[in-house]
Amino acid sequence: MFESAEVGNKIRKAEYQAAVPELRTAVLELQHELAASTLSVVVLVGGVEGAGKEEIVNLLMAWMDARGVEVHAMWDTSDEERERPRMWRFWRVLPPKGKIGVLFGSWYTQPIVDYAYDRIDESRFERELHEVVEFERMLTHEGVVVIKFWMHLSKKIQEKRLRKLHKRPETAWRVTPITRKFFKKYDTFARISEQALRLTDLPFAPWRLVEATDERYRNLTVVRTLLGAVRAALDAHKPPPGKRTAKPPLPEPQPYNVIRNLDMSKALGPGDYKQHLARLAPKLNGLTRRLADERRGMILLFEGPDAAGKGGAIRRLTEAMDARIYQVTSVAAPTDEEKAHPYLWRFWRALPRLGRVTIYDRSWYGRVLVERIEGFCAEPDWRRAYSEINAFEQQLCDYGVLLCKFWLAISADEQLQRFADRKETPYKQYKLTEEDWRNRAKWDAYEAAACDMVARTSTDLAPWTLVEANDKLWARIKVVRTVCDRLEAALGRYKIAG
Amino acid sequence: MFESAEVGNKIRKAEYQAAVPELRTAVLELQHELAASTLSVVVLVGGVEGAGKEEIVNLLMAWMDARGVEVHAMWDTSDEERERPRMWRFWRVLPPKGKIGVLFGSWYTQPIVDYAYDRIDESRFERELHEVVEFERMLTHEGVVVIKFWMHLSKKIQEKRLRKLHKRPETAWRVTPITRKFFKKYDTFARISEQALRLTDLPFAPWRLVEATDERYRNLTVVRTLLGAVRAALDAHKPPPGKRTAKPPLPEPQPYNVIRNLDMSKALGPGDYKQHLARLAPKLNGLTRRLADERRGMILLFEGPDAAGKGGAIRRLTEAMDARIYQVTSVAAPTDEEKAHPYLWRFWRALPRLGRVTIYDRSWYGRVLVERIEGFCAEPDWRRAYSEINAFEQQLCDYGVLLCKFWLAISADEQLQRFADRKETPYKQYKLTEEDWRNRAKWDAYEAAACDMVARTSTDLAPWTLVEANDKLWARIKVVRTVCDRLEAALGRYKIAG
Repeated sequence: MFESAEVGNKIRKAEYQAAVPELRTAVLELQHELAASTLSVVVLVGGVEGAGKEEIVNLLMAWMDARGVEVHAMWDTSDEERERPRMWRFWRVLPPKGKIGVLFGSWYTQPIVDYAYDRIDESRFERELHEVVEFERMLTHEGVVVIKFWMHLSKKIQEKRLRKLHKRPETAWRVTPITRKFFKKYDTFARISEQALRLTDLPFAPWRLVEATDERYRNLTVVRTLLGAVRAALDAHKPPPGKRTAKPPLPEPQPYNVIRNLDMSKALGPGDYKQHLARLAPKLNGLTRRLADERRGMILLFEGPDAAGKGGAIRRLTEAMDARIYQVTSVAAPTDEEKAHPYLWRFWRALPRLGRVTIYDRSWYGRVLVERIEGFCAEPDWRRAYSEINAFEQQLCDYGVLLCKFWLAISADEQLQRFADRKETPYKQYKLTEEDWRNRAKWDAYEAAACDMVARTSTDLAPWTLVEANDKLWARIKVVRTVCDRLEAALGRYKIAG
Repeated sequence: MFESAEVGNKIRKAEYQAAVPELRTAVLELQHELAASTLSVVVLVGGVEGAGKEEIVNLLMAWMDARGVEVHAMWDTSDEERERPRMWRFWRVLPPKGKIGVLFGSWYTQPIVDYAYDRIDESRFERELHEVVEFERMLTHEGVVVIKFWMHLSKKIQEKRLRKLHKRPETAWRVTPITRKFFKKYDTFARISEQALRLTDLPFAPWRLVEATDERYRNLTVVRTLLGAVRAALDAHKPPPGKRTAKPPLPEPQPYNVIRNLDMSKALGPGDYKQHLARLAPKLNGLTRRLADERRGMILLFEGPDAAGKGGAIRRLTEAMDARIYQVTSVAAPTDEEKAHPYLWRFWRALPRLGRVTIYDRSWYGRVLVERIEGFCAEPDWRRAYSEINAFEQQLCDYGVLLCKFWLAISADEQLQRFADRKETPYKQYKLTEEDWRNRAKWDAYEAAACDMVARTSTDLAPWTLVEANDKLWARIKVVRTVCDRLEAALGRYKIAG
């Protein structure tokens, strides 16, 4: 693969100087057009040491309108980054719509270096790259243009370049011990990088291999490629994901399904309830403290129809926990910063450090429930969400986060009864809105969407627990007990992977 | 002071139960009203161990609509927090407008504990509390209602309470070695806490001392006090800061001022320029690498009329630096999340970790320049901004951040000439907007505002450098040289305070 970038491409000075003014104008114009669009651009600058990654970033910074571009050096990680799944630090710096983010080092760096130094084996390496592929696919679907540069130098040229850098006092610092260490492994890195590039050279995010021997050729190639890629993306620009579609087809009601199969007569008397809770609450308290001590994380998420008792169930959990350990996140309408990023961004940004419990009152599953039913996003967008969510949850679980997902099921009659109660209890009136009635009118569609969701996202790692919630006491105990059981099964048996 | 919270306040069970339903409704109604307002609320829950801080937080969580409230445990700090000034972690969790943030532990914890364990002396203790006063004053002005609870128990009652907690298996964990250690120092903590409370008992953010011996009394007192304080703030609610006022009075032009006193004939020939830059660029490179090695931080900020050459000066700096060290932040219109917080929030949130250089193209000084002149904020708001900004910069400098502030001065004629040039150079056209012409019409007012700004915010710690910028080459060299000089003077001589 790299031979094609060792062919001696060159550009003469006069030609270069003649090309520059027009290119600079084109870059600025394109940035302007981008700013008015709903696309964003991520530029990955990778490649061998000495190939001029710094120079390219400086060139882009010099030519671009600084208001529309950010550079992020993804070198050292902080403990906050290490205490979250691997991809968190990249989610953190994703540019919003209209902007360009230039990443120095990328999600490829760690897998390549880890494999080169035998810290991971080939299958792990390939699995990490597979995750990257899915990540880039999702970004592309969400309107993020991913442009990947790989600057190449032959071994001979690299050696010459490093020697030259080392000789000049003003650049000597750039030849660090790490650079030298890497150079000794040139062949290993070449082999592994080629493998990485091959496995991740995607139609929607192809690698742009740049022969970096001649600086002028390198510069023009990068800028022209960038222009071409952004141009193509703008031209192919469709309505952004998440845009309301005309009349979404509602899912067909299913006469038999996992929710209707639930035994809704399950109930607990107040005496039994108290007895159970008196036993489970201190247990939960102890287990969550052990979770914090072991630097694990836990995410509990709750979905279900309005008035299914999500708030009440959550309260039984929080009352049993140390308030310093947990955080309740109620998912409401996204802010404009959130709307300017892929839909999972708001959940990534709120991801807790290890040692904490985060409870989501509604969650990322909104994508395949309310957004699907109300047509807030187009069909292809919610369809791909199942696998994107599974990938997201896998990353959480890989990192040692315990994930419990609860669907609180009530019958339509029970909901009506609870709406009526809310109307009459002064401090519950705020809970009942027009929207609740509108959602109720689409009861069957929501139920069918929930069944689809459970079918596609209930995994071994992150199973859904369906809770018969017509009886609040039964539901609460089932939730608390499930959390305890999951914690007991998981704690102490797990090593953090990150 | 604490005697007033050892008087034996009690509430009978029947009275408590009768009061609860009405209070719960009132809390929810108030939250609703708050959500529609431009105020936010910060509740600090402080006090002695065993007084029921956890219980109060749980109670508030149980009674409130979870969608409008967040709990933040400010216990352990992360390295990202330790690599920023002390207050960063609190800025990080400030609730947006319409919401309530409950802080468990607060900006009082560290000073009190540090002083109790002799890690800081009394004058440092008082200075830290003084910073807290200014911080709370600023919050109040910016529409954040600060409600400070101090839960008190007498020594005897505390001992009894801890013994009881320790005896019951489900609460024994709460009596940690730290709790016991603190209890041994009850008298010291009482003395120091009283001093802290006395020094920070402000008319706009008074302490609410709560006798915590009787749980029912404690609960009702906290909730009633909270209700009263938020009610009063909503009633006194004026148009939010930052709201455009009718016709702001423009500052009088000043015939003699520091900007007009500059010798605008200063210039450099291209030969001299190249020679200077060839010497200064590698020097700057080396110095910023030392800065990174020494885990210091640097902030460079640029203000000045449109077309003064801010971008060009910044480019000369960035070209000389390792792209992994610096970050350029162009300050444009705030996002809605930013608008929902105090005006300095957007700068705090973007604050770099130590070891980095951050360059601001325009900055927090917008408050006393464009916002003042265009009437985007009311006169009292920009007037208080001078001292708020000084306090902010002092915190940065205390933490080891080197701060260089540049005002690039050009004459009105020179600006006109540059506007004309921009019109003609294709890749510069984007830089010229209608707004630039509008700003130009208010030249004298902007100049007077800049002079006020320099007079009030050029401090020993963070001086303004006025740059004669009619000649671009002169200006660029002056900027690079100033940065080098400041770095040389500062590096190696400094210990990080945090």
